Amino acid sequence: MIVLGSTGSIGVNTLNIARKFALNIDVLVAGTNIELLNKQIEEFKPSKVVISRKEDIHKVNHTNVSFGEDSILRAIEESPAKTVVNALVGFLGLRPTLKAIECDKKIALANKESLVVAGKFIDQRKLSPIDSEHFALWYLLQDKKISSMTITASGGSFRDYPLEKLKDVSIKEALNHPNWSMGNKITIDSATMTNKMFELMEAAWLFDIRKLDAIIETRSLIHGLVNFEDGSSTAHIANASMQLPIAYAILGKCDEQVLQPVDLLKVGSLEFKQIDKERYPIWEVKDTILNNLDLGVVLNAANEVAVSKFLNSKIGFLDVSKISLEALEKFSYVKPNSIDDIFEIDKEVRSYYDS
Amino acid sequence: MIVLGSTGSIGVNTLNIARKFALNIDVLVAGTNIELLNKQIEEFKPSKVVISRKEDIHKVNHTNVSFGEDSILRAIEESPAKTVVNALVGFLGLRPTLKAIECDKKIALANKESLVVAGKFIDQRKLSPIDSEHFALWYLLQDKKISSMTITASGGSFRDYPLEKLKDVSIKEALNHPNWSMGNKITIDSATMTNKMFELMEAAWLFDIRKLDAIIETRSLIHGLVNFEDGSSTAHIANASMQLPIAYAILGKCDEQVLQPVDLLKVGSLEFKQIDKERYPIWEVKDTILNNLDLGVVLNAANEVAVSKFLNSKIGFLDVSKISLEALEKFSYVKPNSIDDIFEIDKEVRSYYDS
Repeated sequence: MIVLGSTGSIGVNTLNIARKFALNIDVLVAGTNIELLNKQIEEFKPSKVVISRKEDIHKVNHTNVSFGEDSILRAIEESPAKTVVNALVGFLGLRPTLKAIECDKKIALANKESLVVAGKFIDQRKLSPIDSEHFALWYLLQDKKISSMTITASGGSFRDYPLEKLKDVSIKEALNHPNWSMGNKITIDSATMTNKMFELMEAAWLFDIRKLDAIIETRSLIHGLVNFEDGSSTAHIANASMQLPIAYAILGKCDEQVLQPVDLLKVGSLEFKQIDKERYPIWEVKDTILNNLDLGVVLNAANEVAVSKFLNSKIGFLDVSKISLEALEKFSYVKPNSIDDIFEIDKEVRSYYDS
Repeated sequence: MIVLGSTGSIGVNTLNIARKFALNIDVLVAGTNIELLNKQIEEFKPSKVVISRKEDIHKVNHTNVSFGEDSILRAIEESPAKTVVNALVGFLGLRPTLKAIECDKKIALANKESLVVAGKFIDQRKLSPIDSEHFALWYLLQDKKISSMTITASGGSFRDYPLEKLKDVSIKEALNHPNWSMGNKITIDSATMTNKMFELMEAAWLFDIRKLDAIIETRSLIHGLVNFEDGSSTAHIANASMQLPIAYAILGKCDEQVLQPVDLLKVGSLEFKQIDKERYPIWEVKDTILNNLDLGVVLNAANEVAVSKFLNSKIGFLDVSKISLEALEKFSYVKPNSIDDIFEIDKEVRSYYDS
């Protein structure tokens, strides 16, 4: 298989699954963590490697190394591998998803932005989501009449932080997620709840449903609930590790132990909280967005620019959501009619804020 | 359909479902609550009524009333109805279950004792359990490799009662269940945790599995969990009302709203506790019993006698479990080879304690 983003947390977990089930790795695609990449090359012996920057090529211990987006797309096209794990971060992940679909490969999709910005134009027939929440929903689906679906949120780095101090938080504090460690972008998205907004949009595309909501479950053990017409709900409970969704996305099914089961007696209690609009201003527009999924590309572009500015100390934490909300207002008219329109709108929104 | 035990809590809920889905009631079988029975007769217009005692016949507003076990069995045999809801309490429920199977009728089974004492000899092909826990497990079953199953317990009337005072509790206190109101027998069984032991034995017969356990979930909103080989669990969440299991047991499926959905934000938190062997001495023999389901008839007979003695102020609360544990020891050798043996053993155990 082809692993896009092999040195990030999803990539590393994907390789854990590959090790466990002795799966072949044909292509590794990574960013700038060449040290880890070299270890992965030694263990998994891919036939090809693609990295971000030309200047790092000489550090990579492999005879077939290239760099940049075009090389990723070519690697997908040329590889005999039938599965692409797309764990790239951001809008950058869209073209590889489209290429993999074009090449009729199976896609295990961890890149949220592909569906968020272009769900309308993505053929889902060979796509499996890698996300605890969507995995949970899929796991729970049965032949019963579904009323709605609920996913859970951890609440992110500032779940219990004094509201009035939110405007002055440091980058370091924002990157300190209570329940697990992930990449910087998604950790910030988690703190602003934009990540959960993305997941709801993905769920809308994946499950063709708009009655969707999210609640905070502080231990991150329940990942999703399906609410049936009869009044019952079912919940998926698992320790927070991406290995399980990855195993299912790659293997289709899995009857071996991948995670330690949750011991509810050790857990003791579970706590549920509302997603408060004051703490998470993006939640203000949840319904607007779920009723107009075309806004995904706008929200994503504005958010990518804003998060990057925050991580470069150019704006404060609360400005991230402010920019997103403002962009949704300003570009509320967008109506993409093709995948080309998506790239156009993305560029337009970015150039408006990227100054 | 035929409703055995129409004036008890399951019976009343069954008639609620019958009202909601406009189901025909052919036979009503009740005990001594003739006032409620007469209301049910007026509304559902059964063709036949059976009650417990001859002396109550003249109080029943119906032209076709008989009494006693033989009349129940005859009613099952003669009725054209295809479904029997068996909500009788105790060993008394066994013969009607057997008769319904003999007549090839569908059985919605709320009588726990049928499976507990004679699971080995019961053909389950037309049987659906009416019990939140077994319904939950059934609801969750999918085509995945199951590792184990967990059901939940409320903890009963004395969950938080000082341990050292348990020996002196009154009948009134014992009948004061924290989460809902049920018949006397099952409320005491719930306080001793014998009810949960019964449910585990039923689950063993229903799902052909021995890796079974129970935990206390104090709000009684999660009813059962299925634990899969991959390390995930799924949970069934619903407000504690028997109407949902009843609707499924009778209708096979149900895509209409029967219960109000659970609002986890209002619930706030869920709490899990171990079933403590000091508080619930019967839990001491859980594994012994699950490994030898033949003991069901012994446990049930001893427990029926003991609960009845407790409710008649002849023994203390802790003696109920003591008698059950003693009987399991004394009659540990039983090996029923036929349904006749079950009736023999039941009689033997009863006559030993019934003095």
